[in-house]
Amino acid sequence: MTKKQLKVAVIGGGSSYTPEIVEGFIKKYDEMPIRELWLVDIEEGRHKLAIVGELARRMVEKAGLPIDVKLTLNRREAIAGADFVTTQMRVGLLEARRRDEHIPISHGVIGQETTGPGGMMKALRTVPVILDICKDIEELAPDAWMLNFTNPAGIVTEAVQKHSRVKTVGLCNSPINFQKFLAKEYGVSERDVMPEFVGINHLHWVTAAYVNGEDKLQELINGGKDYSAANVTAFDWDFDFLSSLGAIPTYYLRYFYMTDTMLAEMKESLEKNGTRADVVSRVEEELFELYKDVYLNEKPKQLENRGGAYYSEAAVNLMHSLYTDKRDIQTLNVRNGGIIDFLPEDASIEVNCVVTAQGPVPQPLQRVPEQIKGLIHAVKTYESLTIEAAVSGDRGTALQAMVHHPLVPSVAVGKRLLDDMLEANKAYLPNFF
Amino acid sequence: MTKKQLKVAVIGGGSSYTPEIVEGFIKKYDEMPIRELWLVDIEEGRHKLAIVGELARRMVEKAGLPIDVKLTLNRREAIAGADFVTTQMRVGLLEARRRDEHIPISHGVIGQETTGPGGMMKALRTVPVILDICKDIEELAPDAWMLNFTNPAGIVTEAVQKHSRVKTVGLCNSPINFQKFLAKEYGVSERDVMPEFVGINHLHWVTAAYVNGEDKLQELINGGKDYSAANVTAFDWDFDFLSSLGAIPTYYLRYFYMTDTMLAEMKESLEKNGTRADVVSRVEEELFELYKDVYLNEKPKQLENRGGAYYSEAAVNLMHSLYTDKRDIQTLNVRNGGIIDFLPEDASIEVNCVVTAQGPVPQPLQRVPEQIKGLIHAVKTYESLTIEAAVSGDRGTALQAMVHHPLVPSVAVGKRLLDDMLEANKAYLPNFF
Amino acid sequence: MTKKQLKVAVIGGGSSYTPEIVEGFIKKYDEMPIRELWLVDIEEGRHKLAIVGELARRMVEKAGLPIDVKLTLNRREAIAGADFVTTQMRVGLLEARRRDEHIPISHGVIGQETTGPGGMMKALRTVPVILDICKDIEELAPDAWMLNFTNPAGIVTEAVQKHSRVKTVGLCNSPINFQKFLAKEYGVSERDVMPEFVGINHLHWVTAAYVNGEDKLQELINGGKDYSAANVTAFDWDFDFLSSLGAIPTYYLRYFYMTDTMLAEMKESLEKNGTRADVVSRVEEELFELYKDVYLNEKPKQLENRGGAYYSEAAVNLMHSLYTDKRDIQTLNVRNGGIIDFLPEDASIEVNCVVTAQGPVPQPLQRVPEQIKGLIHAVKTYESLTIEAAVSGDRGTALQAMVHHPLVPSVAVGKRLLDDMLEANKAYLPNFF
Amino acid sequence: MTKKQLKVAVIGGGSSYTPEIVEGFIKKYDEMPIRELWLVDIEEGRHKLAIVGELARRMVEKAGLPIDVKLTLNRREAIAGADFVTTQMRVGLLEARRRDEHIPISHGVIGQETTGPGGMMKALRTVPVILDICKDIEELAPDAWMLNFTNPAGIVTEAVQKHSRVKTVGLCNSPINFQKFLAKEYGVSERDVMPEFVGINHLHWVTAAYVNGEDKLQELINGGKDYSAANVTAFDWDFDFLSSLGAIPTYYLRYFYMTDTMLAEMKESLEKNGTRADVVSRVEEELFELYKDVYLNEKPKQLENRGGAYYSEAAVNLMHSLYTDKRDIQTLNVRNGGIIDFLPEDASIEVNCVVTAQGPVPQPLQRVPEQIKGLIHAVKTYESLTIEAAVSGDRGTALQAMVHHPLVPSVAVGKRLLDDMLEANKAYLPNFF
Repeated sequence: MTKKQLKVAVIGGGSSYTPEIVEGFIKKYDEMPIRELWLVDIEEGRHKLAIVGELARRMVEKAGLPIDVKLTLNRREAIAGADFVTTQMRVGLLEARRRDEHIPISHGVIGQETTGPGGMMKALRTVPVILDICKDIEELAPDAWMLNFTNPAGIVTEAVQKHSRVKTVGLCNSPINFQKFLAKEYGVSERDVMPEFVGINHLHWVTAAYVNGEDKLQELINGGKDYSAANVTAFDWDFDFLSSLGAIPTYYLRYFYMTDTMLAEMKESLEKNGTRADVVSRVEEELFELYKDVYLNEKPKQLENRGGAYYSEAAVNLMHSLYTDKRDIQTLNVRNGGIIDFLPEDASIEVNCVVTAQGPVPQPLQRVPEQIKGLIHAVKTYESLTIEAAVSGDRGTALQAMVHHPLVPSVAVGKRLLDDMLEANKAYLPNFF
Repeated sequence: MTKKQLKVAVIGGGSSYTPEIVEGFIKKYDEMPIRELWLVDIEEGRHKLAIVGELARRMVEKAGLPIDVKLTLNRREAIAGADFVTTQMRVGLLEARRRDEHIPISHGVIGQETTGPGGMMKALRTVPVILDICKDIEELAPDAWMLNFTNPAGIVTEAVQKHSRVKTVGLCNSPINFQKFLAKEYGVSERDVMPEFVGINHLHWVTAAYVNGEDKLQELINGGKDYSAANVTAFDWDFDFLSSLGAIPTYYLRYFYMTDTMLAEMKESLEKNGTRADVVSRVEEELFELYKDVYLNEKPKQLENRGGAYYSEAAVNLMHSLYTDKRDIQTLNVRNGGIIDFLPEDASIEVNCVVTAQGPVPQPLQRVPEQIKGLIHAVKTYESLTIEAAVSGDRGTALQAMVHHPLVPSVAVGKRLLDDMLEANKAYLPNFF
Repeated sequence: MTKKQLKVAVIGGGSSYTPEIVEGFIKKYDEMPIRELWLVDIEEGRHKLAIVGELARRMVEKAGLPIDVKLTLNRREAIAGADFVTTQMRVGLLEARRRDEHIPISHGVIGQETTGPGGMMKALRTVPVILDICKDIEELAPDAWMLNFTNPAGIVTEAVQKHSRVKTVGLCNSPINFQKFLAKEYGVSERDVMPEFVGINHLHWVTAAYVNGEDKLQELINGGKDYSAANVTAFDWDFDFLSSLGAIPTYYLRYFYMTDTMLAEMKESLEKNGTRADVVSRVEEELFELYKDVYLNEKPKQLENRGGAYYSEAAVNLMHSLYTDKRDIQTLNVRNGGIIDFLPEDASIEVNCVVTAQGPVPQPLQRVPEQIKGLIHAVKTYESLTIEAAVSGDRGTALQAMVHHPLVPSVAVGKRLLDDMLEANKAYLPNFF
Repeated sequence: MTKKQLKVAVIGGGSSYTPEIVEGFIKKYDEMPIRELWLVDIEEGRHKLAIVGELARRMVEKAGLPIDVKLTLNRREAIAGADFVTTQMRVGLLEARRRDEHIPISHGVIGQETTGPGGMMKALRTVPVILDICKDIEELAPDAWMLNFTNPAGIVTEAVQKHSRVKTVGLCNSPINFQKFLAKEYGVSERDVMPEFVGINHLHWVTAAYVNGEDKLQELINGGKDYSAANVTAFDWDFDFLSSLGAIPTYYLRYFYMTDTMLAEMKESLEKNGTRADVVSRVEEELFELYKDVYLNEKPKQLENRGGAYYSEAAVNLMHSLYTDKRDIQTLNVRNGGIIDFLPEDASIEVNCVVTAQGPVPQPLQRVPEQIKGLIHAVKTYESLTIEAAVSGDRGTALQAMVHHPLVPSVAVGKRLLDDMLEANKAYLPNFF
């Protein structure tokens, strides 16, 4: 490629994560010369955008690079002619997340922002906004790649692939974190490890863990070694269970495999600390206090506690490989095709991909344990129905999605939950009301 | 076919159901001339076998037919040269069923003899015994068809298809009962109705209900019309749910769609009436009292309350079509092939089949609602793992089966349940101990 | 069904075949009361239509039935409100067939009206006309079933299924003839035989031949027994070949398996008798002479020599089963779905179907010999490309269809043939010129 | 990987190709330290082995590397403990090739050593010998990778994958040559080009030709640019044909797309120069004259005219990537899995693969043109039947393979050809005689 003037638009640019992606662009500048970096946010985010935007400019200045950081509330201006568009936003802000977490728990159901009824509500709010952004991209930057970090990333990615012509990839930091964990565990570089992931976003299993070409999975299970994240309580897995499973479940799978314990812990924690949204809210306030410091010109260490560690590294790696036709392997959310043979071809899945200039090519899976097929299929069914409901605003479809989610205990509870949650999100669900 | 001397062996011939199948053979005698009917049972069933056998002989005598009813405890003698072998047995007798129902409830999980952990235990006890019978059939009657009524019929049928060369079909009375319900509802003959069933044994949905070629499904949903059975409490379905589902779930699906209500009802009923096993136990006692009456020479009306109404009609119909290459349509448990495209080819499914002399040919499905795919896949996954565990006696595989059953709330509960239930069934599980 | 007034439209009603279908309607009148029978033809067929129409009226009168036979050149009038529409026509008349047979032979390639380049030309002429008829049906009789006899029947049926919403089934007389041959061979009724056909129209293999439930295929092969038709020279099959094939190829497969011999015979016969079109031309003249006889009031015996024996019996059987939801088994050209797993789902195939009121349901195949898969796939590829070419008028697509037909020896010959044949059919190919 | 002492066994080490692979090992020594290189041949090749072996030793000495070149006629000694085994042999020597080429032409059929009846005979001779070698590898070097160059490479590779537990990959030089051609054409490095190949060995199409991430395929077609090889006459492709095909066929496809021209040329050339076997025979004699020169200590330029250019580069690249888990993309013959969805999962195909330490992972194909599916399927059908015939020695299966090859014009010709060729190869076909 000979193109010289790359333009990137970051939707939700006022997010506390932004310094991380800016750091990534600076590091890769030589191989991927970004000249315009547009941070765009909505009116409610004007203040945060200003703070983060200034920090980004100081970082670029310190690096001595000709990256022009532009701040705007005009999304179309940011998107026009962009090569990459990233989305990192939260429709309804943390207040909505608080409700996503709180209402299910009050009905005795897991309340989490990506898994279960909470994730479903987040999806119903987010999908229409994302598809609206896609219309702008189709019109103003038809060749752009949209990198989607917005949760629930699997659903959002599948919605875009089904309902727009925008080229998109979904990203989660869980795979890259496992990779780093594995490299550290064996004292090798990240290039020498290659885990195999099977599943869909926030519902994957590690089925092999190659270190220099040798599979260390059983060794990890034997040693009780696993990676978890700040936002999910890390109860230990039962050894007999993992051993007969022959795979390491992602930490999000605790919601399914330890439902009773997780729910009890959630209730207790809710009383003590409020929801996870409340915790994040406090962390964010502290971060923005730091960002205001005019002497700060690099990503502060504290950002790593935010929960989304290495998201931006993953995103910058992906852009770089798309740009250079690098054909390296990354774990991404992409269209299934025939990789997971029991899921629809147009479902999004999260698996290892070879990243080419034409997009990521999902890799055939060595082994999909029989045990997990039903659960993957059940959750994917819920996801696809949720997309259909979000786009149509059809309450019957939403009811089917809710009721067939494995964490919802009955039609009766699912129906009550749906009614409550739709009502509470009325302002963000014009399709339904 | 020109063969004149048909021989049928009924394994578990001392069952209270036997008079029904005898009645069936008598009615169809002209088209399917059975000359030898062997009723075989185990030592513990000697007394019941004698009572039922005598009744069978009186029924044949009254009909004036040359059917020779033979009673034996020697299974091999009964099987040798048979054209059809039917199995209707209960490994561990009602005492085992009592435990299957009771132990799960004590852990807060649905306790049912075919669905959930109870069904799993029944399967673990039954599969090895059935495969042992199959060895005899392979040796002594290699061309015989085995008609399997023994629950969990889907698992048992799949086990036979995977682990023996015996030709087998699984039978449930639920489809024939729906058909009769439909015919009655519309005042037409059974030949003029044709429901379409999608799913697996005890987990199917009716997705179309043709009456004289017109689909009446939506009409049935609108009218709140549905069929249920004596052994499952018939809470009403939510109209919005059925309507957006576009299908009528079998009554067994209440365990999945109304888990909370069904569990509460089970606990209450347990305190009042004991388990379903206790109820059945009382009904059976009454039946055998009737059977003893030397003046009784026909199937008593009371048998219809037993729970398995029309089982025998279904069985006799099936034998008749196999024998005459009739190519009519019946709903049966057969090897999937590619009919349900997301399940393994060697899974058993319960669908409409054209019955030929070479066996039943499953019919392509018009429509499989997206919503139900995950649940079907999850339960089938549990079923296949259960078969693997039953054959191997591997506790890890059993744990995977248990934990991945949708009615089991967590790895921890599943593991405790498994330990308790295996221990309680020790006497019947030589593979595990 | 309670509908009393059935209306049937026969497109190409002036055909010499019509007396046969009229006879069929008369025979089945009690179960399928047709009140209006519309025979429609084009201006060029006015004379023949009048002759055949009068014969039809005499036949109905003799039978004493209230079937109103209507003759018209106005297709839309005939179609409006019809329950069944049948098509039996020849775009370009016998003159075009003459060219289809002659031009390929002059390039050293098989010249046949359904197989090879001749069939391709016939398809290019016919598909647009059929799709035009379908537009009328969509508008004027949207619930009608279209029964298609028009050759190449597989291509025409697939074209309708892909490019219109009309419900259609394709029919060939080859399967019913094999069935009659088989019944006669074993001295049983047609109801007691059940051959299994695998393949596509004019390219199928009989892979099993059940007589009273027993497979007699090997017996037929051993005895050198086979059925052929008037229009295909019946050179004997090589015994070793059939025996290792494990199937009996339809007589049309001689064009593929005996290409050299068939071509030589064609060249010789061409010199002696002209093309098959010339032969048919003479037979038709004789038939119409007979039809003119005002004392003739039944189908004349001589029609059976015409080559399409039992076409009409097949058609009437099909209508009857569609009308009564009979669910019997017939061999038809239908949408593949997943029956032949290596062909596209929307390809037409010719297999056994259960005929329901909703249409024919293709039956799963017991066995598809490995050997024949490549040839089926190659010819189906040619067929689908031909449809695409007929609809688009794209010469490149037509070239691909021609070149990839297994009977065309090279790109160079294929291209010359295509140029010649398109030019010769210019008047009937507005899409191309 | 930390293993230090790599051992490689070259079966057919006396081949004139050997200096090329030796050169490859020398170049890659730093990254892939081969310590033992075993050249093994049969008694008939003793003389050539000595000559080539001495040259290999001189080459290693000149490079100053500690590679121990061992010569042996004892295959088991060479294989024991090997990390890689390569096979480059010719059962029956050039004399057999002469017959493979000559006999078909005498029946009016293409005579070529890998395509058509000639390739079939070569396969029948070679498969049993290769499977015999595999037994040694299973016993003496179970972890070794077998790299197979022996033609017909697709058949041989599939045979090994179906009938042994040896890990194998098939290699052809055609893809690497196209890659080099493409890089040269656009003046970029080989790392910047990425063609996509679809098909099976010697029957593939280039469906995309990325240069720095942009597809140049149409440009190549427009410019009439294509790559051919020394052993296949390069008649020009028809532009209209390629353009509507949307792909560039490999030069071997001229046998299928230009059958008439190629056959005519073959007959003419046969009279003038003898078969290709005769030509190769003369080239080989010259090469061995050169190799004898004790002052020669590098691969002579003349070897590049031999016809198998860059075979060894491909082989060394493959070993290197397997050894280092490099995960780069190479075009290889591997098990299909689900990549070409209409072929059996256990068929060998030739496509782009990511090469990992666990073996090559075939990449999903972007596009398989409809046109070519039938031809691929037909030839693969022939290939699989040929393997079955080679292993079983069943003449009926061989007949089916022969007759269903698209280049064989009829059952009659196929049967005569088969009889002649089996008879002529009697000495090498113990399974058949």
